[in-house]
Amino acid sequence: MPKTYVTRRVHFNAAHRLHNPQKSDEWNRETFGKCNLPNWHGHNYVVEVTVCGTPDTETGYVIDLGHLRKIIEEKILNVCDHRNLNLDVPFLRGIIPSTENLAIAFWQQLENTIPSGTLYAVKVFETERNMAEYRGE
Amino acid sequence: MPKTYVTRRVHFNAAHRLHNPQKSDEWNRETFGKCNLPNWHGHNYVVEVTVCGTPDTETGYVIDLGHLRKIIEEKILNVCDHRNLNLDVPFLRGIIPSTENLAIAFWQQLENTIPSGTLYAVKVFETERNMAEYRGE
Amino acid sequence: MPKTYVTRRVHFNAAHRLHNPQKSDEWNRETFGKCNLPNWHGHNYVVEVTVCGTPDTETGYVIDLGHLRKIIEEKILNVCDHRNLNLDVPFLRGIIPSTENLAIAFWQQLENTIPSGTLYAVKVFETERNMAEYRGE
Amino acid sequence: MPKTYVTRRVHFNAAHRLHNPQKSDEWNRETFGKCNLPNWHGHNYVVEVTVCGTPDTETGYVIDLGHLRKIIEEKILNVCDHRNLNLDVPFLRGIIPSTENLAIAFWQQLENTIPSGTLYAVKVFETERNMAEYRGE
Amino acid sequence: MPKTYVTRRVHFNAAHRLHNPQKSDEWNRETFGKCNLPNWHGHNYVVEVTVCGTPDTETGYVIDLGHLRKIIEEKILNVCDHRNLNLDVPFLRGIIPSTENLAIAFWQQLENTIPSGTLYAVKVFETERNMAEYRGE
Amino acid sequence: MPKTYVTRRVHFNAAHRLHNPQKSDEWNRETFGKCNLPNWHGHNYVVEVTVCGTPDTETGYVIDLGHLRKIIEEKILNVCDHRNLNLDVPFLRGIIPSTENLAIAFWQQLENTIPSGTLYAVKVFETERNMAEYRGE
Repeated sequence: MPKTYVTRRVHFNAAHRLHNPQKSDEWNRETFGKCNLPNWHGHNYVVEVTVCGTPDTETGYVIDLGHLRKIIEEKILNVCDHRNLNLDVPFLRGIIPSTENLAIAFWQQLENTIPSGTLYAVKVFETERNMAEYRGE
Repeated sequence: MPKTYVTRRVHFNAAHRLHNPQKSDEWNRETFGKCNLPNWHGHNYVVEVTVCGTPDTETGYVIDLGHLRKIIEEKILNVCDHRNLNLDVPFLRGIIPSTENLAIAFWQQLENTIPSGTLYAVKVFETERNMAEYRGE
Repeated sequence: MPKTYVTRRVHFNAAHRLHNPQKSDEWNRETFGKCNLPNWHGHNYVVEVTVCGTPDTETGYVIDLGHLRKIIEEKILNVCDHRNLNLDVPFLRGIIPSTENLAIAFWQQLENTIPSGTLYAVKVFETERNMAEYRGE
Repeated sequence: MPKTYVTRRVHFNAAHRLHNPQKSDEWNRETFGKCNLPNWHGHNYVVEVTVCGTPDTETGYVIDLGHLRKIIEEKILNVCDHRNLNLDVPFLRGIIPSTENLAIAFWQQLENTIPSGTLYAVKVFETERNMAEYRGE
Repeated sequence: MPKTYVTRRVHFNAAHRLHNPQKSDEWNRETFGKCNLPNWHGHNYVVEVTVCGTPDTETGYVIDLGHLRKIIEEKILNVCDHRNLNLDVPFLRGIIPSTENLAIAFWQQLENTIPSGTLYAVKVFETERNMAEYRGE
Repeated sequence: MPKTYVTRRVHFNAAHRLHNPQKSDEWNRETFGKCNLPNWHGHNYVVEVTVCGTPDTETGYVIDLGHLRKIIEEKILNVCDHRNLNLDVPFLRGIIPSTENLAIAFWQQLENTIPSGTLYAVKVFETERNMAEYRGE
């Protein structure tokens, strides 16, 4: 029974700022530099969700990627797109929205929603140059 | 002896349709939606073939990627490019041409043809948003 | 009153075949080569629609690109996506679906639907290597 | 004396929001939809600046693109990168930061700074799907 | 008779160095900086050739892009690919291989070879960030 | 303690040639073909460096990617950019600059410099079609 990894790529636009509210402004400026500037900046985020499993013999699908798209839309895009990741997203409350932490949080949102196959990886691109991947390890 | 993963990226254009001929038209329409439309649609497929091995000390190559390109051309591109994946490709006969199944079938075409190194992964991009990878597991 | 050019990029997947039904099969094979193969092939088409005008002083928009997207969806994507461009699309009947002819036909579909600004260009990418643009000239 | 068009592509990340402060909140919500959400969103902006001129016979350059990069950095990137385009950028004060208006404003910033050649176009990509170009017309 | 612009994108890899042999080493170092380093550097060049004309009523083509590809191959790629642009290419002798000058020289190579339609533009990308276009003006 | 993989993508331009000086010219020509041409060719190299670790609870970072960028700049870019990989780079002396060998050599340059987390992979793209990855195995 061959196992394949299927990936759906989606995108959303959001504002954020790297800031640890339990630390001083000075610590934040020194640690995060321009990523800490007070009035926010933002990104065209790209998210790649990979599901692993054996293709169903009747459909050839590990998972219907249109259905996976809908799950991602409901669990992530509808709450993050055109939002402020520090202020607006319930499941990110208390989390510094670094790319690493977004990948982990998105995984947790999706983890129990995959109807067939198993969630394998969530990769978040902040830009084409900076990205983070979480594989549930 | 360091082990590296070398990848060659190729592309071809083909028509296909998701359809299970052992099921009713209604089941097919419900399951595959617009991917089941009767007169075919198509894609600019991208295939990434990854071979793993130790670089040869005389050449610095795990495998000559120009040679790998020729193998992929002979085994995959010459039979798939500008073809209908449901009708024209002998090694896909009886297979629903989902991205998952294409990755597995392409792996099987290449598996015994790699002269040095070992086939590690075959990744097929149906679009920039949908892709499937098979690693021989 | 400064004039700007705004562009919306969309994509769809379709099958097609280059074939002139008024010519012999031999002429078609010689003229179109593998693009004439009988069982169709297909592409991930990308379309860029450019509208020219002065940004509205109240909105900053030449045209709301979300609205432009909806026009393109209604006039082009809904009839072309996952279809066969030779068989399924009413406004392409009798037209050889070369990239050039698609750009002209899409222009004609959109021409009278732009609520503000003026249609400036329609660019169609058949692949990342082949594209055609029509500017209404 | 042949004339060529040389382009330098740069990028920056910023937050913004489409909002006309002279209009009611309701008008803004209806006009701009999710682009008007109160806590900002953001983009990985890409800017392409094109300069037109005859290549210098001693250098082969219309303009040293490294020098053009420095001008863009000083005039645009240093004030926009990781900033809020509605709140932080002096030359955008009172301007709704639509892609169209950004292209015009960036042109005005650069217009008198090109040491050789002539500014020909400023193209701003808000995403890979939405872009606006200003050519000084 | 509608006029369209068709483009073929090709690529080649070459070494070069910006150096004016009629000037002193010091002038070259000051003018070209690291682009003048003595042992060459190189690029994955991308060339886009655009031809303008009316699509033929029998084929739907302004020009067969496969045929255009062969012309570009013969006139440009076969002499430039994997070569040193300062030393190896007859038609670049005596020319500083700036992106601007390459666009002009490639135009001159292609100018009289387009069997139908008219050469409209040659665009050369040295990197994704630096490019030059020549339109025969 | 969740483990994530963070990646920084960088690029540089260099000349190289595949040539084994311990072999005859004939062997080199037969083995490397046009990659062995005597006057060098070159590439826009892209390097992706991946570091694995647990995000710091105070910063949300596995590693500050701006800091990782500086390490890569110091150890790789400053010595490779606009250089000849066969002649100019001390840490490549005696190494055939195949993509495989570059990935291994860059790993060795970075290996002991990652202040937090662990080096997981170095991926080198010679072109968009050819790439090699080393994971320290």
